[in-house]
Amino acid sequence: MGKAKYTIGIDFGTESGRAVLVDVATGEEVATAVHRYVDGVIDETLPGSDVPLPPDWALQNPEDYLAVVEVTIPAVLRQAGVSPEDVIGVGTDFTACTMLPTKADGTPLCALPEYRSNPHAWVKLWKHHAAQPEADAINRIARERGEPWLQRYGGKISSEWFFPKVWQILDEAPEIYEAADRLIEAADWIVWQLTGNEVRNWCTAGYKAIWHKRTGFPDRSYFRALDPRLEDVIDRKMSRQIWPLGAKAGGLTPQWAERTGLKPGTAVCVGNVDAHVSVPAATVVTPGRMVMIMGTSICHMVLGTEERIVEGMCGVVEDGIIPGFQGFEAGQSGVGDIFAWFVEHAVPPVYHEEAAARDVGLHELLEEKASRLRPGEHGLLALDWWNGNRSVLVDADLTGMLLGATLATRAEDIYRALIEATAFGTRVIIEAFTSSGVAVDEIVACGGLPERNRLLMQIYADVTGREFRVARSTQAGALGSAMHAAVAAGPEAGGYSSIVEAAAHMAHLTDKVYRPIPENQRVYDRLYAEYVRLYNYFGRGENNVMKVLKRIKAEARGEA
Amino acid sequence: MGKAKYTIGIDFGTESGRAVLVDVATGEEVATAVHRYVDGVIDETLPGSDVPLPPDWALQNPEDYLAVVEVTIPAVLRQAGVSPEDVIGVGTDFTACTMLPTKADGTPLCALPEYRSNPHAWVKLWKHHAAQPEADAINRIARERGEPWLQRYGGKISSEWFFPKVWQILDEAPEIYEAADRLIEAADWIVWQLTGNEVRNWCTAGYKAIWHKRTGFPDRSYFRALDPRLEDVIDRKMSRQIWPLGAKAGGLTPQWAERTGLKPGTAVCVGNVDAHVSVPAATVVTPGRMVMIMGTSICHMVLGTEERIVEGMCGVVEDGIIPGFQGFEAGQSGVGDIFAWFVEHAVPPVYHEEAAARDVGLHELLEEKASRLRPGEHGLLALDWWNGNRSVLVDADLTGMLLGATLATRAEDIYRALIEATAFGTRVIIEAFTSSGVAVDEIVACGGLPERNRLLMQIYADVTGREFRVARSTQAGALGSAMHAAVAAGPEAGGYSSIVEAAAHMAHLTDKVYRPIPENQRVYDRLYAEYVRLYNYFGRGENNVMKVLKRIKAEARGEA
Repeated sequence: MGKAKYTIGIDFGTESGRAVLVDVATGEEVATAVHRYVDGVIDETLPGSDVPLPPDWALQNPEDYLAVVEVTIPAVLRQAGVSPEDVIGVGTDFTACTMLPTKADGTPLCALPEYRSNPHAWVKLWKHHAAQPEADAINRIARERGEPWLQRYGGKISSEWFFPKVWQILDEAPEIYEAADRLIEAADWIVWQLTGNEVRNWCTAGYKAIWHKRTGFPDRSYFRALDPRLEDVIDRKMSRQIWPLGAKAGGLTPQWAERTGLKPGTAVCVGNVDAHVSVPAATVVTPGRMVMIMGTSICHMVLGTEERIVEGMCGVVEDGIIPGFQGFEAGQSGVGDIFAWFVEHAVPPVYHEEAAARDVGLHELLEEKASRLRPGEHGLLALDWWNGNRSVLVDADLTGMLLGATLATRAEDIYRALIEATAFGTRVIIEAFTSSGVAVDEIVACGGLPERNRLLMQIYADVTGREFRVARSTQAGALGSAMHAAVAAGPEAGGYSSIVEAAAHMAHLTDKVYRPIPENQRVYDRLYAEYVRLYNYFGRGENNVMKVLKRIKAEARGEA
Repeated sequence: MGKAKYTIGIDFGTESGRAVLVDVATGEEVATAVHRYVDGVIDETLPGSDVPLPPDWALQNPEDYLAVVEVTIPAVLRQAGVSPEDVIGVGTDFTACTMLPTKADGTPLCALPEYRSNPHAWVKLWKHHAAQPEADAINRIARERGEPWLQRYGGKISSEWFFPKVWQILDEAPEIYEAADRLIEAADWIVWQLTGNEVRNWCTAGYKAIWHKRTGFPDRSYFRALDPRLEDVIDRKMSRQIWPLGAKAGGLTPQWAERTGLKPGTAVCVGNVDAHVSVPAATVVTPGRMVMIMGTSICHMVLGTEERIVEGMCGVVEDGIIPGFQGFEAGQSGVGDIFAWFVEHAVPPVYHEEAAARDVGLHELLEEKASRLRPGEHGLLALDWWNGNRSVLVDADLTGMLLGATLATRAEDIYRALIEATAFGTRVIIEAFTSSGVAVDEIVACGGLPERNRLLMQIYADVTGREFRVARSTQAGALGSAMHAAVAAGPEAGGYSSIVEAAAHMAHLTDKVYRPIPENQRVYDRLYAEYVRLYNYFGRGENNVMKVLKRIKAEARGEA
């Protein structure tokens, strides 16, 4: 065996970027560095301006992404004491769809003085929600035309995705649309910066830009139906050449070699997405094992051998996660953020005081108290729609419900009921997959929640009737990118020939297994039946009270 | 005009008794005294014992009632500086059904050494809930036999009422049942003590003991069907002679004259019930004006000219409130206690800190914040069943629900939604009355809530579309008893010939009128339609999830 080789994975998140330097042979995470974006999420005013942005806007400054590379790569090299010669590749993953308009050479329009004061010149972050009118029209026209691709996205294109954002630029700032030689995912833009090559990846193209490996993008006639000026958007501002995941986009440019301390020509992998790159990092490269990235929300990723239409999924993309497989994605729009809401807004002082006195977190205290309850003992049932419902109902206007409260109900009862409700929501998603022929035999969890809340993991196992394993890495995105970097470097450089091979060496699970407890399962099966009934009653149009309340609320606020 | 005359009203509550000395000509409340029961609510162990009571038991010590008389009457006389000659009558009202077994001379069995250690020898307080099995059998057998009186009680006899409690004594302590020469409401027992006369009143007999002015008690054959030993319960241990409200039960005995400082022979009125006696104290002596006694729960009292069957009412009793009228009673089992639950168990520290810093109560702070919301603005809807539902569903197994929550929901939003839910619950009751031909044109509120929460009163006016007025007295029970005392004394002694006449002089409203605001009404009409739909869906058997959850909860606790 020769000397140890390393790759660097960089995970571009919402607030910061994180680099991890990984031993290619073992997956050991040798060094980690995080850099917060200076401008963060831009949702009030543009940097250097005091003109307020409209509601629902969320922008970023691409300079922040470059700063992450420039700061974190030298930092991990320094920490690890690793020689640049032994770093064989760099991989990146990004939030998505996070996109920007650039000139033909990749210069972001927002970096040019003449466009800098126009908000549409900046990066539209994934959670920019101001393109809803465009998304609505995109969906309506697709339904009217019977576009075949719509069902691959659970019947609905999200306002967060690529074409709603593009169309919003055209609608509201045609001069920016005109000035943009390229419209590109930040995932691909960062790779372009590092390599000088504009290469676009299968993952964001497939999940966010309605691209399909065999049939490509939607027809020109469809884009023309949206707006005649959009007819040529693919050919004029994007590309029909999409690159497979794990491919080498190019070598690191001399300029970036200098700025990072790496060698020029170091292999740089094509772009990828945080959730998707976590799948092999959680050891999953074959069908039947679902990866759940559990944090503020949950992404559910599972592989299949055939394209299946699954109700309310976010998307199915061939080769979109692991080459050779259909990659299915579904999601719950509110999980950890519901628990955070509860802890911040609905827990009385006596709990805060006890937590402070015992020097434990409030989540921890509530978990401890909730752990003492037997399933069903609190008498509560909730619908976990505080942030709407993504899968399987694809309806942002649904809202949260709690039922069963009495004068004896206490905070830990509600906390547990909220955890259970999100577990029931996951079970609905799993059943949507399995009933469509996509197997989900076992779960691997990663993200922030699994390590923090064991009660939650046990409840998920009990509710779904599946064993839950936990990925060893607590930074699965960055590790997954480092694994893809090893594939881009290739075996001749000391890397791997495929992500499957990389996963076999670099991805690991913890020893902990959460197994369903039959006695709990029996109770949860009964509660789940009640959950499903309410889910259907409130979620499928039989009683639209949640929408009526939202309408009345909007009217009361003068918004409707 | 002669010298001013006075009466004393004594209101026997759950934790204490309250006497008020009132100017008969004006209703002016000249002096008030409160005495807390030493043994209070006995729900853990009997006084002087450490044998624990079973769950759901609630007893009292009749000595505490006597102490109230002995302490408070001298206190109000002293405070007011009024001569006993000028006190023309004493009236009392009680919680009900609060009952006890006694010997033939009125001695409570619990006062006798041989019975003192038997819990069944003590007073069973209104909220003693351990006779549910007996209540269930009473209802089942009544339904099977098609007993005509059942519909006068909303189709269900409560476990709190007289015969379930009597039957529980027989079931569990036949020796106490046998030793009891008399079984009697505390409302009548206290009058017996003061006068030496065992007289029973129309109100408790009618509302709690299934008595009807024209048809009397249920048939002997019905009691035999319950238990052969109960066949003669009325004739052996009760009385078929029931006295009208406002009648003079007798004169104060020399012993009690001595103990109180009043003159022997001072008129003592027959017993009455706290909620019912509040009606004339709230100026209401004619149909069309509903009195709402608003506190922990709400009692809705309204007069009618004909007996009507109203869904889910607590009862209709001819002459049961005001002679000459049908007295209708309905109720909401949870109102102020839901707000109290919320404030204690679901409001985060920042509100507590703000309230403390500004030296206001938490209810006050939440009311202030909730007042800034327009109707419908919070987007929430609740079912106010934290303590079950009394009218109109008569179902203790229903539970609370909150719907419409988002990550932006705050405590004042929920607080307001809970107030609104209780107002919607009142509207359902009002509509049950009006649709059965019992007019409810206007409301008079009394009790603890109206003076404390103006937002609540305005919401009730907006939701019900009725003007709300507020009784001037904050101790309507005691004032009502003093008014009845003036009737018992009669015009020849300086009192009145009827409660109608007494009310014309002694009962008053404040100037405050809460009028429905048409703009708010329009929004609340829409929200009410949604409330009613959920009320029926969850409350009338279409979806029994609340009962399923209660069953699972009982199983989880090993109670089922």
